[in-house]
Amino acid sequence: MTSTKNTVLLDVQGLEDTRGVALQQAGIKNVKMPLQILQKNGQRQHVQASATMSVGLTATEKGTHMSRFVIQLNQWGDGPVVSINLAEFLTEMKTRLNAETARTVFQFDYFIEREAPVSGLSAKMAYPCTLKGQIRQDNTCETILSLVVPCATLCPCSKAISDYGAHNQRAAIKADLVLDPSLNETHPVVWIEDVVHGLESQSSCPVYPLIKRVDEKFITEKAYETPKFVEDVARDAVLFLQQYPGVTGFHLEVEAFESIHAHNAWAMHRENFISSVV
Amino acid sequence: MTSTKNTVLLDVQGLEDTRGVALQQAGIKNVKMPLQILQKNGQRQHVQASATMSVGLTATEKGTHMSRFVIQLNQWGDGPVVSINLAEFLTEMKTRLNAETARTVFQFDYFIEREAPVSGLSAKMAYPCTLKGQIRQDNTCETILSLVVPCATLCPCSKAISDYGAHNQRAAIKADLVLDPSLNETHPVVWIEDVVHGLESQSSCPVYPLIKRVDEKFITEKAYETPKFVEDVARDAVLFLQQYPGVTGFHLEVEAFESIHAHNAWAMHRENFISSVV
Amino acid sequence: MTSTKNTVLLDVQGLEDTRGVALQQAGIKNVKMPLQILQKNGQRQHVQASATMSVGLTATEKGTHMSRFVIQLNQWGDGPVVSINLAEFLTEMKTRLNAETARTVFQFDYFIEREAPVSGLSAKMAYPCTLKGQIRQDNTCETILSLVVPCATLCPCSKAISDYGAHNQRAAIKADLVLDPSLNETHPVVWIEDVVHGLESQSSCPVYPLIKRVDEKFITEKAYETPKFVEDVARDAVLFLQQYPGVTGFHLEVEAFESIHAHNAWAMHRENFISSVV
Amino acid sequence: MTSTKNTVLLDVQGLEDTRGVALQQAGIKNVKMPLQILQKNGQRQHVQASATMSVGLTATEKGTHMSRFVIQLNQWGDGPVVSINLAEFLTEMKTRLNAETARTVFQFDYFIEREAPVSGLSAKMAYPCTLKGQIRQDNTCETILSLVVPCATLCPCSKAISDYGAHNQRAAIKADLVLDPSLNETHPVVWIEDVVHGLESQSSCPVYPLIKRVDEKFITEKAYETPKFVEDVARDAVLFLQQYPGVTGFHLEVEAFESIHAHNAWAMHRENFISSVV
Repeated sequence: MTSTKNTVLLDVQGLEDTRGVALQQAGIKNVKMPLQILQKNGQRQHVQASATMSVGLTATEKGTHMSRFVIQLNQWGDGPVVSINLAEFLTEMKTRLNAETARTVFQFDYFIEREAPVSGLSAKMAYPCTLKGQIRQDNTCETILSLVVPCATLCPCSKAISDYGAHNQRAAIKADLVLDPSLNETHPVVWIEDVVHGLESQSSCPVYPLIKRVDEKFITEKAYETPKFVEDVARDAVLFLQQYPGVTGFHLEVEAFESIHAHNAWAMHRENFISSVV
Repeated sequence: MTSTKNTVLLDVQGLEDTRGVALQQAGIKNVKMPLQILQKNGQRQHVQASATMSVGLTATEKGTHMSRFVIQLNQWGDGPVVSINLAEFLTEMKTRLNAETARTVFQFDYFIEREAPVSGLSAKMAYPCTLKGQIRQDNTCETILSLVVPCATLCPCSKAISDYGAHNQRAAIKADLVLDPSLNETHPVVWIEDVVHGLESQSSCPVYPLIKRVDEKFITEKAYETPKFVEDVARDAVLFLQQYPGVTGFHLEVEAFESIHAHNAWAMHRENFISSVV
Repeated sequence: MTSTKNTVLLDVQGLEDTRGVALQQAGIKNVKMPLQILQKNGQRQHVQASATMSVGLTATEKGTHMSRFVIQLNQWGDGPVVSINLAEFLTEMKTRLNAETARTVFQFDYFIEREAPVSGLSAKMAYPCTLKGQIRQDNTCETILSLVVPCATLCPCSKAISDYGAHNQRAAIKADLVLDPSLNETHPVVWIEDVVHGLESQSSCPVYPLIKRVDEKFITEKAYETPKFVEDVARDAVLFLQQYPGVTGFHLEVEAFESIHAHNAWAMHRENFISSVV
Repeated sequence: MTSTKNTVLLDVQGLEDTRGVALQQAGIKNVKMPLQILQKNGQRQHVQASATMSVGLTATEKGTHMSRFVIQLNQWGDGPVVSINLAEFLTEMKTRLNAETARTVFQFDYFIEREAPVSGLSAKMAYPCTLKGQIRQDNTCETILSLVVPCATLCPCSKAISDYGAHNQRAAIKADLVLDPSLNETHPVVWIEDVVHGLESQSSCPVYPLIKRVDEKFITEKAYETPKFVEDVARDAVLFLQQYPGVTGFHLEVEAFESIHAHNAWAMHRENFISSVV
């Protein structure tokens, strides 16, 4: 065949749309890319993110330019560091895409070196994190930091009614934190390392990547001395997050993978979680 | 050992909590149970649900009674039918748990018999659905029906610039619909069957479980004649849902599993989606 | 456009392939369909299966006829019952597809009514199951029944070294059983109900869908009295399966979702598991 | 309470087992850890692995020492590079655990810089990989490299019978390769980069992370010119792998996420895949 179309490649996305419907988000989802995240100690951590990037479309813009998202993502992977504040990344998106609003979501595992409570042996442990950010028409930004913190719960009821032992299990504390932009922009005050530590302290006992028998004894007895329902962990985490500097609102979930059921115990609470980053 | 505890088993959950924190939700998650769902044709469909059930806790209630959720769920599995309106189920929860608010989420695959467009051959096809409902202190209810509708999109840009062919791919339309309680309570007007049909009609072409060559020819040509970006599908679905009787708000996502990338194209839009069912 | 192709629709799959490569499997994957499974009590259970169906292709057959799989699956969903022996289903596949070999895989949740150990309260509980079957050129069949059985393990080390308590957790026993066709064909001797019961009995304690405080006390103390590593559960399950009538080989895994780590303890063992059903 | 147990912490795992059952594998599963993988260009790539590590237990060994796996994994994360040959890592495991056999599985995303076919624009793209290795009593090793390669398939039947267009979709080629230890040990000849390129060349068209309109035109037309069923891709991949230096056997699957169905087309073939690494 001879080509009649390839001399000029029509920009269909650039055509005008006539349906009169503005779209809040249009973009790409599930793009995997290496990123560098700023650690509390000032160093960079190489993580592997699954990214969603999108912009708002006005009623007359037919489509967005999908390739520009990938170009930006790829350039940041090799160069600048993403901190918990996403303002710089979002501002660049808005400019590149010539859009009124922009939004990004990064999901990644963040590693923290953790020491066992007695032996002091340490190893890296992964915490699933999500960073969601949105920049509005007026260039204000909103960022939500989400974390999943594994821990253990030991059942107060089981302990109270049993002659010996008490059922316990792995649990997960999931927190979505709305960050105060005024506090986090120039001087970040919310660090993944600190929130992990604060949240796991509300459980019956933290979990550790590397333990010896002296640690196992400590953990077993600590959990037995600190029985908590998911409701207790949730309430203590609420009290913790209400006081956290730089956090203006939160959505909290605690889920325990019960060792007496095949289903889970679960509690949820949110405060001041009016967010446009959905 | 001799047992000193088992003559009276302390009800720890029934103790008073002193932290002053009310919890929005406490309950069970990921319980699998058979249910019966009312079909548009008046018959019952046996589905297998993964359920989350929870109630609100006042500031002084220590914990909820997890077993009561399972009892109710199990009794409904054998007996009454769940319709898209969950008011009856939620009212029973509130009473059983002696709670001020109650919430339930059912996730299940719903099967619809689908006919191929030309041959008329038919087979069942599964649509992932979620029903979320909440009953408030004043006994008003809110229900959200969510569906995932597989379909195909064919790229307008690819068609416009290529001498022959056009890339196309499987896509998914995901809609969360806030149901008008006044319209759905006694006379349900929103049926899964209808919403599936309406949403897939906004794509380049529906997908079918069972097709012959005459159908494949029809589908191929229909998609080529109906090129749509995810943005187009989203806009047309917005126009469709804005008019839908019994739907007062919605959150819509369209995701295309692009055949030219390993990542997806995605669009999102929500209207009047102020919901307390999170 | 006027159609020049639709008067005769070429059967491309029916063409001859010249590469000289026979394929062991060609077919469809991840088709969801309701099925009926024979229970031990003689009744039928409605399950929702995710099915893979395939046939062998000789070196000269270009492709298989994908729609015939769906037709058969859909007809069985409404009518005949699938037992653990798949010979009848596989023989029909071989005939419909005019193939030398055929293979099917059904994944589904199977519900069993379970009574709590003390109160006797009962509710349904779901067990993930997989049935894999293959029919060979000589019409002999092979069937593998796979089950996932949730249970609890309580750590012997933790109990031995701690002044009080012992960490415990939910665990899963996964068994793939090669069924003796001569014993299972006309008189099935391997029932899901029995294997579940036998396997969970090798753990520190079974888990139950619905329990009251008297049950929770029993379960807690039973687990404390029966400490087992994953290695212990695996060994006891090996001894159990070696003796099981109608089981000629097995692949066994035990995985404990440790409450002291975010990672799992795991053991695996297989015997006489030379299978052509891969 | 006063502690009577903590002066000497009993090594329960070190006790003798009397059941007479040797276990093929005992260890840890789903441990996340950063690793460094050797690239074809000689540089190191930082990946994030989910690891399974295990050793064989003789009939008299009660349990394995779970913490030693984590220690080794953590030390390798910071230091030595894992190549496709795992002999050094496995030998160290065998020594540390004082075991007769050892086995490891690493799952990770491996990034390759990919250039678009016409514009030459490049970005990183992730390929899911798995490395499984086992060391036997006689210190011989076996390694399996598994890859998932996304690509596109365009249906030959749809093209042949339709007046215009042809349905196409994203597909995945999954290959498990048994590596020849004599060829791969000192001078690896199997590189992820090369296998990815070779496998995607058997599809209708590769997929790319970053493309412009000139690339989209090329990809669309290339796929239309190269129609292939999953059976065709499988056969061509079989011919490719049969010739691959350093690969002594393979298990191959091709799965197409059909744009005309909600289910997938699938083909599988294996040759000389007698492996003890299960």
